[in-house]
Amino acid sequence: MFSDLYDVVVVGGGHAGAEAAAAAANMGSKTLLVTMNLQTIGQMSCNPAMGGIAKGQIVREIDALGGYSGIVSDKSAIQFKMLNKSKGPAMWSPRSQNDRMRFAEEWRLALEGIPNLDFYQEMVSGLIISEGRISGVRTSLGIEIKAKSVVLTNGTFLNGLIHIGEKQFGGGRAGERAATGITEELVSLGFESGRMKTGTPPRVDGRSLDYSVMIPQPGDENPEKFSYLNTPVLSRQRDCFMTHTSSHVHELLREGFDRSPMFNGRIKSIGPRYCPSIEDKINRFADKDSHQIFVEPEGWDTVEVYVNGFSTSLPEDVQFKALRSVKGFENVKFFRPGYAIEYDYFPPTQLKHTLETKLVENLYFAGQINGTTGYEEAASQGLMAGINAHLKINEKEAFILNRDEAYIGVLIDDLITKGTEEPYRMFTSRAEYRTLLRQDNADLRLTPKSYELGLAGEERLKRMEDKLSKSESFLNFFRETSFDPSEMNPILERVDSSLVKQSDKMFKVFSRPQVSMDHMLELEEVATFVEENGLDREVLEQTEIQVKYSGYIEKEKSNADKLQRLENVRIPDGFDYSKLKSLSFEAREKLSSIRPVTIAQASRVSGVNPSDISVLLVHLGR
Amino acid sequence: MFSDLYDVVVVGGGHAGAEAAAAAANMGSKTLLVTMNLQTIGQMSCNPAMGGIAKGQIVREIDALGGYSGIVSDKSAIQFKMLNKSKGPAMWSPRSQNDRMRFAEEWRLALEGIPNLDFYQEMVSGLIISEGRISGVRTSLGIEIKAKSVVLTNGTFLNGLIHIGEKQFGGGRAGERAATGITEELVSLGFESGRMKTGTPPRVDGRSLDYSVMIPQPGDENPEKFSYLNTPVLSRQRDCFMTHTSSHVHELLREGFDRSPMFNGRIKSIGPRYCPSIEDKINRFADKDSHQIFVEPEGWDTVEVYVNGFSTSLPEDVQFKALRSVKGFENVKFFRPGYAIEYDYFPPTQLKHTLETKLVENLYFAGQINGTTGYEEAASQGLMAGINAHLKINEKEAFILNRDEAYIGVLIDDLITKGTEEPYRMFTSRAEYRTLLRQDNADLRLTPKSYELGLAGEERLKRMEDKLSKSESFLNFFRETSFDPSEMNPILERVDSSLVKQSDKMFKVFSRPQVSMDHMLELEEVATFVEENGLDREVLEQTEIQVKYSGYIEKEKSNADKLQRLENVRIPDGFDYSKLKSLSFEAREKLSSIRPVTIAQASRVSGVNPSDISVLLVHLGR
Ligand SMILES: Cc1cc2nc3c(=O)[nH]c(=O)nc-3n(C[C@H](O)[C@H](O)[C@H](O)COP(=O)(O)OP(=O)(O)OC[C@H]3O[C@@H](n4cnc5c(N)ncnc54)[C@H](O)[C@@H]3O)c2cc1C
Ligand SMILES: Cc1cc2nc3c(=O)[nH]c(=O)nc-3n(C[C@H](O)[C@H](O)[C@H](O)COP(=O)(O)OP(=O)(O)OC[C@H]3O[C@@H](n4cnc5c(N)ncnc54)[C@H](O)[C@@H]3O)c2cc1C
Repeated sequence: MFSDLYDVVVVGGGHAGAEAAAAAANMGSKTLLVTMNLQTIGQMSCNPAMGGIAKGQIVREIDALGGYSGIVSDKSAIQFKMLNKSKGPAMWSPRSQNDRMRFAEEWRLALEGIPNLDFYQEMVSGLIISEGRISGVRTSLGIEIKAKSVVLTNGTFLNGLIHIGEKQFGGGRAGERAATGITEELVSLGFESGRMKTGTPPRVDGRSLDYSVMIPQPGDENPEKFSYLNTPVLSRQRDCFMTHTSSHVHELLREGFDRSPMFNGRIKSIGPRYCPSIEDKINRFADKDSHQIFVEPEGWDTVEVYVNGFSTSLPEDVQFKALRSVKGFENVKFFRPGYAIEYDYFPPTQLKHTLETKLVENLYFAGQINGTTGYEEAASQGLMAGINAHLKINEKEAFILNRDEAYIGVLIDDLITKGTEEPYRMFTSRAEYRTLLRQDNADLRLTPKSYELGLAGEERLKRMEDKLSKSESFLNFFRETSFDPSEMNPILERVDSSLVKQSDKMFKVFSRPQVSMDHMLELEEVATFVEENGLDREVLEQTEIQVKYSGYIEKEKSNADKLQRLENVRIPDGFDYSKLKSLSFEAREKLSSIRPVTIAQASRVSGVNPSDISVLLVHLGR
Repeated sequence: MFSDLYDVVVVGGGHAGAEAAAAAANMGSKTLLVTMNLQTIGQMSCNPAMGGIAKGQIVREIDALGGYSGIVSDKSAIQFKMLNKSKGPAMWSPRSQNDRMRFAEEWRLALEGIPNLDFYQEMVSGLIISEGRISGVRTSLGIEIKAKSVVLTNGTFLNGLIHIGEKQFGGGRAGERAATGITEELVSLGFESGRMKTGTPPRVDGRSLDYSVMIPQPGDENPEKFSYLNTPVLSRQRDCFMTHTSSHVHELLREGFDRSPMFNGRIKSIGPRYCPSIEDKINRFADKDSHQIFVEPEGWDTVEVYVNGFSTSLPEDVQFKALRSVKGFENVKFFRPGYAIEYDYFPPTQLKHTLETKLVENLYFAGQINGTTGYEEAASQGLMAGINAHLKINEKEAFILNRDEAYIGVLIDDLITKGTEEPYRMFTSRAEYRTLLRQDNADLRLTPKSYELGLAGEERLKRMEDKLSKSESFLNFFRETSFDPSEMNPILERVDSSLVKQSDKMFKVFSRPQVSMDHMLELEEVATFVEENGLDREVLEQTEIQVKYSGYIEKEKSNADKLQRLENVRIPDGFDYSKLKSLSFEAREKLSSIRPVTIAQASRVSGVNPSDISVLLVHLGR
């Protein structure tokens, strides 16, 4: 049935798979997306939201690179918020609530719009590998699909096992089957696999809640959006609501602990530390007698509600009784209980920076299968795997993002260098250069690179260039234009900043922490410049950040450059660490197994000390 | 978790379950819909279309009774056609093509809008029955849900087994699990169960088809709609396309016959005779060297296409090779292959006219579980089961439609009286009084009854009454108003009808077969009447039918009345046929098992002869 040879076959239509398929096909690869159910493409398994702290930056990066997660999120958003707006711009993090059905539909239609991309619904149950190189996949019907490269994005489906209280049953997600065959085959090829777990809260009937006793959580007054392209801005939004648990709720939950698969040893694998279940929170923070619960609508019109903060695998009767004691939930009705799921993953130290496996050529892993958690983490890996699968078979240089270029670079470098013992989630603290990796400049950082690769299109590049030149000229305007003290001083007085005696460049006074772009816009000359040059919100924001944070940004850039030098010291392929007796034993072992490609990467391997790095540098003649 | 006692629990969210839940809840029953996946409510398992010959009449009847199938179809339609418009109005049959995703979404949102209706996602695996009466259901998690009555609408899911060529695997629908437990439990209670099968064609990528060599099948120029309410009329439509198989295609298909589960004995159960697989068609009509294929889009925007007429369970490579030889399909790409599915059903002679089971009180069956096939057949049973479940627990009289009142009456009476050995589908030929059971008058026939029950709402009744009074006054206008020969004769000349010498009532000339409403509208007086009274299309249509077919209609009505007398001769509960030695042996056996409630029903039991009926009538003192 599949007589043609595909360039790229992507297995799985989750966030990773959808981005991988889109990227490879858009770059020109003849691509096939095989997934168990074509109606669940781009399905949000857990909360109906995209972005958030560090994750929102990733969505912006995906968008800047020409991926679809930002566009799909914008088109299906029901609420938008810029988190951390009170902190420095490195912390600003966009987040949307989404209509779950619309989100999946927009993904499906976006993918259908890509000419090079074919679709096929079935379970992939085996891989065709010969001489250490992949040449296709085998489906459960026994169909062979030939491919130059394969990207596996199986998410939580590999031998998925769902737990609710003392009951457990196979499944990849509530109501969906697990996928079998692939883990066993990879393990027989020498891959190491492990088990992780994650969980999800109950879904409930919004009509049974008393919102009047909860705190409304509206979206931003002037909502922004994810995509740098021309996606729509929300003109109306839906509120979320906040409530909280109480010590009584915790007591009720504790009554079920002996029947909890988390505590009675039935679930052995490790879950996401930063997305703990409610029972976990109670257990770990025994002194806290209240936790926040966010009540998130699942869409524009549906009454279904996601109970964020109440992820649990306790027996359903315990979930129910406890949730009924939460303020506003006294009469709650369940659509379905929460559950935990255990699934296979492959420790990502078995991957190269391109997400290609070290063991099997042209085989890539992306998403939850690599031990990560989260839609954004998955999507970004899918994008990078799709790009690199395309580049490799076209004998082009790999596309790798450094840690000072993108959160995506940090994510992948962390994964393949350090591996992960628990579901890996992105945080701003993981990025050394987070002042550089902001949500406002992902396009400036990444769009030119992607355009060069042939992924980001003309329009994307033009918009980015336009923004860049406009904000540069605006910056120059501030650098070159002087203010009139009589116009400036009333503003300074208002914001409690010392007055100026004589005229000076606007840049100088604008640099003061108390003075914002809004204040500067009160100056007639500034307002005129904005008007005449048609500067939009993005340009104003970009310019303001450049004015206010240029110092930090420059400093971080120079730090990054220093380290970049180590990044340029490459370690030869197949380097024999066992000969270097002056390396510590642990370093020798870890380096032999991880096989970093540069000194910088070697320095990030856990267990490798600065002294080991010196030894290496000396040995490599530096 | 479910401490409350529900009035009605509906198991399954297909067409039958959705209508059942809506009806019971709208009538005031505290209702719960439990289904395996809340995201597949109202899913169209097979073709993306509603209505058609006899089926379209059923949708209109469902709508007239206050069901939702018509509304949902209208809101999600992408094309509308009135079939058989060239034949008499009894044959006119509305049919829509639908956007599959939108259809399911509209159903979900419609149900969510019903205050008395709760939802729960899980598999029901057992029933709670004591002393021959149902008192609830048990889910796969072991949760017990108490209920006064239960409606089972499991569709094709009970022990569903999917076949493609020589492969078979459990499943209720492609990509969905089968449901287990219920059949076994019912059989242990004394129910008889059987196996049936049905099939579906491949879904393909519309981008891979060459539409230029196919024949476009557009919708009607002035599309109508299903609902008598104020649903939107299509302002744009999507075309379908027609192509056909060839003897070469048939040859290619025949090559796979030895691997066909239909022919090698693996599938033993019987499929729908009137919806045969392509291999069946080739086999049964060996002399035909071409069959029609209708290419139906799956929605407004998606590229997915349904290949109507090519249902098959041949091995996927055979499906593929053969379809590639169909004109326009030379480069076809599969989204998924066709398949057949075998599932459990319960011979419907085990039911009463209310669809309550004879064995277990307050337990109802509706839809495919009763051996029917088709969305419309399923939906209408669901509606009737939902209504009757509500009525019974409120100790109200059952709601039964007679064979001269509705196709729904014919359907249910056929099922419970004759049973069915193969998937039962509605045809106009099954209805003795099809001149009465038209699509144009379902509201007149049924809305007053439903309003009286408390299901159809005020608006529905008012619209129906308005239509009735307007068409009656228009009819009277034709009866009372005389035409002017000089105005009439040019029209008659044009349509080749003999000219009139003198003035006469308009009714008379309008009764001529050549003269249509459009012609009558050319008369100034008629046009003015229409204008002044604001008569819409429905009223014009209704009036025209009354003018043209009143003779037939009256005759059929009187026939029906005659038979109705037998319908009124009730056979006492528990009547002992074994004592009536003058009954034929077969009649005694069949009647003892079917237990008809009236003489009329007894006369329709297969194997019961008119002489047996005479014996019965004499015995009952008539
Ligand atoms: C119960 C649950 C709770 C979660 N909780 C959280 C949370 O609290 N916080 C958080 O950040 N994230 C959570 N997630 C994780 C989040 O859903 C994932 O991170 C994200 O969806 C991963 O994307 P992915 O593309 O890797 O995989 P998925 O979204 O899981 O998609 C996998 C896709 O692959 C397909 N597939 C799998 N195997 C095969 C095969 N053999 N053949 C063909 N197709 C196949 C599937 O059908 C599916 O389309 C949770 C997930 C689940 C299921
Ligand atoms: C492959 C295939 C081919 C078909 N081909 C044709 C055709 O050619 N012509 C035609 O007219 N019709 C065809 N049909 C039939 C058509 O789909 C059905 O007639 C119609 O969908 C029946 O409606 P229903 O409500 O009875 O059941 P379904 O639409 O099957 O819905 C059943 C519902 O019950 C739920 N469910 C089942 N068991 C349980 C349980 N234990 N607990 C909770 N929920 C449960 C399911 O999740 C589902 O929501 C086909 C169906 C299939 C699957």
